[in-house]
Amino acid sequence: MRMALSLAARGLGNVWPNPAVGCVIEQEGRVLGRGWTQPGGRPHAERMALDQAGDAARGATAHVTLEPCAHHGKTPPCADALKAAGVARVNIAIGDPDPRVAGRGIAGLRAAGIAVATGIMAEEAHRQQRGFLTRVLLGRPMVTLKLASSLDGRIATAGGESQWITGPEARRRVHALRLSHDAVLVGGGTARDDDPLLTVRGLGEVAQPVRVVASALLDLPPEGALAASARQVPLWLCHGPRADKARIKAFTDRGAVCVAVPETGGRLELAGLMRALGARGLTRVFCEGGGQFAGSLLRAGLVDELHGFGAGIAIGAEGRPALGELGLERLSDAPRFRLRRLEQVGGDVHATWERPDGLRSK
Amino acid sequence: MRMALSLAARGLGNVWPNPAVGCVIEQEGRVLGRGWTQPGGRPHAERMALDQAGDAARGATAHVTLEPCAHHGKTPPCADALKAAGVARVNIAIGDPDPRVAGRGIAGLRAAGIAVATGIMAEEAHRQQRGFLTRVLLGRPMVTLKLASSLDGRIATAGGESQWITGPEARRRVHALRLSHDAVLVGGGTARDDDPLLTVRGLGEVAQPVRVVASALLDLPPEGALAASARQVPLWLCHGPRADKARIKAFTDRGAVCVAVPETGGRLELAGLMRALGARGLTRVFCEGGGQFAGSLLRAGLVDELHGFGAGIAIGAEGRPALGELGLERLSDAPRFRLRRLEQVGGDVHATWERPDGLRSK
Ligand SMILES: NC(=O)c1ccc[n+]([C@@H]2O[C@H](COP(=O)([O-])OP(=O)(O)OC[C@H]3O[C@@H](n4cnc5c(N)ncnc54)[C@H](OP(=O)(O)O)[C@@H]3O)[C@@H](O)[C@H]2O)c1
Ligand SMILES: NC(=O)c1ccc[n+]([C@@H]2O[C@H](COP(=O)([O-])OP(=O)(O)OC[C@H]3O[C@@H](n4cnc5c(N)ncnc54)[C@H](OP(=O)(O)O)[C@@H]3O)[C@@H](O)[C@H]2O)c1
Repeated sequence: MRMALSLAARGLGNVWPNPAVGCVIEQEGRVLGRGWTQPGGRPHAERMALDQAGDAARGATAHVTLEPCAHHGKTPPCADALKAAGVARVNIAIGDPDPRVAGRGIAGLRAAGIAVATGIMAEEAHRQQRGFLTRVLLGRPMVTLKLASSLDGRIATAGGESQWITGPEARRRVHALRLSHDAVLVGGGTARDDDPLLTVRGLGEVAQPVRVVASALLDLPPEGALAASARQVPLWLCHGPRADKARIKAFTDRGAVCVAVPETGGRLELAGLMRALGARGLTRVFCEGGGQFAGSLLRAGLVDELHGFGAGIAIGAEGRPALGELGLERLSDAPRFRLRRLEQVGGDVHATWERPDGLRSK
Repeated sequence: MRMALSLAARGLGNVWPNPAVGCVIEQEGRVLGRGWTQPGGRPHAERMALDQAGDAARGATAHVTLEPCAHHGKTPPCADALKAAGVARVNIAIGDPDPRVAGRGIAGLRAAGIAVATGIMAEEAHRQQRGFLTRVLLGRPMVTLKLASSLDGRIATAGGESQWITGPEARRRVHALRLSHDAVLVGGGTARDDDPLLTVRGLGEVAQPVRVVASALLDLPPEGALAASARQVPLWLCHGPRADKARIKAFTDRGAVCVAVPETGGRLELAGLMRALGARGLTRVFCEGGGQFAGSLLRAGLVDELHGFGAGIAIGAEGRPALGELGLERLSDAPRFRLRRLEQVGGDVHATWERPDGLRSK
């Protein structure tokens, strides 16, 4: 199952709205086939592994990170493929809550006389499927927030100087994180100030994540580098009901997709924004700020995973804060995260925090 | 030598102005004697280890973390004691730059026909002796700064609520850090706002570090808990030339030691403050803030080691910053530190950073 999980990880970021699944066909310790959800979501992991194993799959064990699908989509159901191949056992990490599957995959296998075991490395699989599960269960993508700052939580000097705070290894890791998400998201302020490309660079020829910008009135430069590249790399602009029609058309003409989102108090309503992204199929969204937008996400309780990069530099209280206002009344209202991983990258600290309550909230 | 270094560590914080030294007497891998500088600085590590080894020391090897002393102080020189005991070899981690030693310990041993090797685990020993070396070479103690904050570098909400941000394990570790220093230092603001005890608690019966407060006009409550405990645990108050004589007397009458320090621009001149602490024998000072005072120390280039404790909580930009203003003109002027150690303590991150240029600056 460990191997199946690491195969599955290859699909993270490029199989949405499908789950990134891994499958290993094995007999007495010999690996006969390895599969993972292919770019775009098809073929499924089971199909790929079974094709590799061929006739040898008969009587073998299949290890799958998510319950095999039981419904006819664009491909025949994987549960049927496993039956047809004659596997004797199927080990499954976690069930698929998709209402079209939801236990039917397992039941079908058992009805065909296949021995099925579930719950194997379930915690790891659950974490890996967080994006898919969040979308199925809550109707929104999983949200990962990046904060990169100095020792004292600053991202720039008072004068706005910010290059470089963290080192090249940390920046490279940020690109790898972008790649493992379906989309990269920033607030309108960052798009206006920096006109960033938001693409994955330095990691070879890769499928680029969707780029998403949140701006109520679409107050963004239509001549900027971001808009200019919309035909090469998908660009989605989330705007509010007040956004000017001509502006929407200007961006649409350049190849961007404009996504209407509700407003509240003059700003985009972020739970609604996330539902809109979920409805369009996104399962994993990587937010890179800026501070105001990140603060709103935290305040709305929408951050599932948080990557803190910390550099060994002190900037002082005049510097620009990594995070905007949260409007906390009491310390007990502050969003809290649990430390999952702690690592040195180059000369910087990389801490991975996660929401302590799993999928239970919002 | 590794054992000698770990014995030496026991002395950190309670042997000032002496160095905390470790000594192991060994023959063919058998440990015959183990010593470390005793509380107050005497007996020295070599004396203790030789006493344990007794006659067996003849022909044995002594591993010492710092060059043995060669001068008659309150105890006879350790170099002479090693000769008299008849050891055959002495392995030394680093030399002692104290002008009364400075190579004479080694020369004396060699003149007596003892084989001397130096530079063994020198980097570790150098780091351990940083306080002693800083005082001998620069006339000031080594300064360790603690910053404990939220993910976004805050120490309290806008309303001042700060209990608790980091967890009990991190707080316990802070007490252990206090214990390994000769003194705990805070700015006047912290003493006024919190009237903290600044003692080591929860670690059994221990020798308490000196407590030092920096306040130009001694604008501190003479009836506070800090002053009231001055006869139990040493309390030094660093003040400027303008401090009122009657106030100085009030604190002195309560058992505090008042230390006059130069001023610059209406604030205490921190290099002068540190020299005054060095002149009084301190080798290792642990500064716990507050933000303004910590900012001034960083700005003055006086921070040698920095302990960052980070909790998995977000407070937002209205919260109180961990660090005050630094007055940076350019990012390249920002104080930079090198990551030495990274650890999870309880649910928090503990990063140990150190000045990258060793003992070369200020
Ligand atoms: N070092 C780093 O890691 C890093 C990363 C990213 C950004 N940055 C820096 O951060 C700066 C920009 O940060 P920022 O805080 O000014 O802007 P921001 O957070 O990027 O964007 C804020 C903008 O997002 C839009 N928005 C829509 N709905 C919102 C909501 N519910 N809550 C908050 N914002 C909402 C608003 O613009 P509309 O009025 O258009 O709706 C708002 O002004 C840039 O200078 C950039 O360089 C640094
Ligand atoms: N969470 C934590 O880790 C932590 C740790 C410590 C403190 N705190 C909090 O921090 C707050 C106090 O911080 P603060 O920034 O207001 O005060 P502070 O940094 O503790 O003290 C500043 C004061 O130190 C004196 N000082 C003398 N020379 C100075 C110099 N060169 N530079 C700076 N200060 C000098 C001045 O007082 P005089 O006018 O008397 O000279 C100045 O007002 C408290 O609320 C406390 O609870 C939190």
